[in-house]
Amino acid sequence: MELDPTALSGHAKEKAMPEQKPQSIKPKKTADPLPSWNDNNVKRSILDFVTRVSTEGGGEFVPPIERIAVFDNDGTLWCERPIHFQVLFALDRLDRLAADKPEMREQQPFKAFLERDLKTIAKFGKREAFEFVFATHAGITTEEFAGLVKSWLGSAKHARFNRFYTECVYQPQLELLDYLRASGFKPFIVSGGGIEFMRVFAEKVYGIPPEQVIGSSNKTSVEMRDGGPTLMKLAELRSFDDREEKVVNIHMHIGRRPILAFGNSDGDLAMMRYALSGAGARLALLLHHDDAEREFAYDREFRLSPLAEALDHADDHGFTVVSMKRDWKTVFGRG
Amino acid sequence: MELDPTALSGHAKEKAMPEQKPQSIKPKKTADPLPSWNDNNVKRSILDFVTRVSTEGGGEFVPPIERIAVFDNDGTLWCERPIHFQVLFALDRLDRLAADKPEMREQQPFKAFLERDLKTIAKFGKREAFEFVFATHAGITTEEFAGLVKSWLGSAKHARFNRFYTECVYQPQLELLDYLRASGFKPFIVSGGGIEFMRVFAEKVYGIPPEQVIGSSNKTSVEMRDGGPTLMKLAELRSFDDREEKVVNIHMHIGRRPILAFGNSDGDLAMMRYALSGAGARLALLLHHDDAEREFAYDREFRLSPLAEALDHADDHGFTVVSMKRDWKTVFGRG
Repeated sequence: MELDPTALSGHAKEKAMPEQKPQSIKPKKTADPLPSWNDNNVKRSILDFVTRVSTEGGGEFVPPIERIAVFDNDGTLWCERPIHFQVLFALDRLDRLAADKPEMREQQPFKAFLERDLKTIAKFGKREAFEFVFATHAGITTEEFAGLVKSWLGSAKHARFNRFYTECVYQPQLELLDYLRASGFKPFIVSGGGIEFMRVFAEKVYGIPPEQVIGSSNKTSVEMRDGGPTLMKLAELRSFDDREEKVVNIHMHIGRRPILAFGNSDGDLAMMRYALSGAGARLALLLHHDDAEREFAYDREFRLSPLAEALDHADDHGFTVVSMKRDWKTVFGRG
Repeated sequence: MELDPTALSGHAKEKAMPEQKPQSIKPKKTADPLPSWNDNNVKRSILDFVTRVSTEGGGEFVPPIERIAVFDNDGTLWCERPIHFQVLFALDRLDRLAADKPEMREQQPFKAFLERDLKTIAKFGKREAFEFVFATHAGITTEEFAGLVKSWLGSAKHARFNRFYTECVYQPQLELLDYLRASGFKPFIVSGGGIEFMRVFAEKVYGIPPEQVIGSSNKTSVEMRDGGPTLMKLAELRSFDDREEKVVNIHMHIGRRPILAFGNSDGDLAMMRYALSGAGARLALLLHHDDAEREFAYDREFRLSPLAEALDHADDHGFTVVSMKRDWKTVFGRG
């Protein structure tokens, strides 16, 4: 993991979370529903799959209620470099917490993060990094947490792209989400990221309502306050939604096997195989970040969330590999 | 808890799960959307609430995406006497398991259930009873489990009503679900019953798809088989979806505070208070089973799922009490 220290800050002055309505770019029946995808075999395989499952009377027709699509978030719907954006949010939160609790400066993993000690941070895996993240989120109500996220998203910017993080979403994926919805699909996010973090922006940015967002979570407790039952965030992990746990959580939240899955790392391997292993038409897509010029080029060396096994065995499993460089006409929207 | 031993069996010969389409009784704009509800204040309060939140330009308008309604299942959408139907399913399952494992006959709580020892069973609380239930569901795949439930629902009948259990659903509630959907609401089930048990029939019987069913669950593990990732049911409890845990699970699955909640026991108290404690128009309904003639009359003495605190403090909390006897013109549909 090559962390650029300058990437770990970068704030514009506080302002409201940017209004985005990318989902208003509705595909017209006659127009190309995926204008940011290059016209090639990958795009055709998506169009072909959606047409087959939504053609009534066709041999591969799937009733709309069963057209479940699952998308990873970090690295699949939005950028995840130099490091997962929620880690950057947690770093800012940690700085404020440590101001009140100086003893945190001597405790790992907080020490490494507080000192931006990249050598130590680089040794953490995704689970360790997110356990740190979730620990900085405890002790407040779920509503207070959502407020903090909203405020951060409205002020912090990506160091390289100089965009709000919610503007670092991939335009081709916004078009795909719109196209799927217009074709009767119900898209869900299934991410290792925090479920409450994503829900703050998923509806506005992706058009995906909170009940269709699945992610990692810590436990919560209910406290009776004047205003009624109130949810407090606890420090104990409830579910780390990665690898096999994604299948467990899909079953728990959706209760139906998806017919389309889109991921970008080995953390998505089990979910993609789960989608493919049902009966009837199925599609599993794997985004490969091979575009250093427009975004980033990485796979197996990104220790926080490597892509190795899923890429090496993509053909065996029947995954369609999407090359950012080859298959996407544009990466980010106008912002 | 007065258990009638004759109620714990009662099988018709095996046949397919009965086809039901109660949701096809669509309310017409001009017709009464709730014909099985008596014309009185309770019915008017429901009609009035739905009209207020769905009238655009009105002071209490709620956007459709925020019109979340939560319903308990046992005793709210279908009958729960003489005992929760899933317990009866588990008893039948236990008889078969014990045939292979005779040592179960000496272990509590299995011994009490195998012997239909009502005195001992009557001492269990809801959580103990359901822990027994879930224990009998372990060791098979989630798909095998769904097959067992489907088969049982297609064969077992309610001893008193001589109906399939899926025909022991309340006609006024089917009309209410239809009316809410026609008014832009998204109804969820939030029940202490097993999430996988309910999902087998909720879509067909209530028109509620699996992703809108929340319930108790045991843990699952993912095994790689020839066909791909397969979910195995484990014996360890994941979530017992009762009382405060209903609020926790609503937050986890839905991520938005409901504006309408309907329950029938103290297990629903926290969920109903949670719904009422948000801003804007809110409605919480509490079904009181006071109709021994057409169904059952019980509240605080039903140890498995008592109604006491919620009834005693209904006015303080702002709950609208629904009397089955007074407010429902019919209880069950034609069956």
